[in-house]
Amino acid sequence: MKIKVIVTLKKGVLDPQGKAIQQTLNGMTFSDVKQVRQGKYFDIDVNMEDEKKAKARVEEMCKKLLANLVIEDYKIL
Amino acid sequence: MKIKVIVTLKKGVLDPQGKAIQQTLNGMTFSDVKQVRQGKYFDIDVNMEDEKKAKARVEEMCKKLLANLVIEDYKIL
Repeated sequence: MKIKVIVTLKKGVLDPQGKAIQQTLNGMTFSDVKQVRQGKYFDIDVNMEDEKKAKARVEEMCKKLLANLVIEDYKIL
Repeated sequence: MKIKVIVTLKKGVLDPQGKAIQQTLNGMTFSDVKQVRQGKYFDIDVNMEDEKKAKARVEEMCKKLLANLVIEDYKIL
């Protein structure tokens, strides 16, 4: 089954990529954008039927590879 | 208000980054991972109170800047 994960920078960690997007949007017709934060999205197809087990497995992957827990948070959807 | 957006590659578009993650996971203890697709996540803070209007505004941003509609799809959460 497919499990979706979002990895985002923790609050307080600088996000120059998001800042660049925000400034570009402001310079276009979107002056009402106050802030943009960018993150990563993963769609992981695990060979498991049980949703709970699959999510536990994906959580393990997040801790070991997908997210850098020093500066990032993950959220399993 | 904050609007969340996910931008993913369309079906059929090759995703070498996702493939590399999948192979790395397989080489660790996660041999049950069949496929990984990577996408982008944006958290956009728009200076608007009305959720419907804010989402319409973000949709415009997706079309004009955030997503390349030739190869990518966007989804506003």
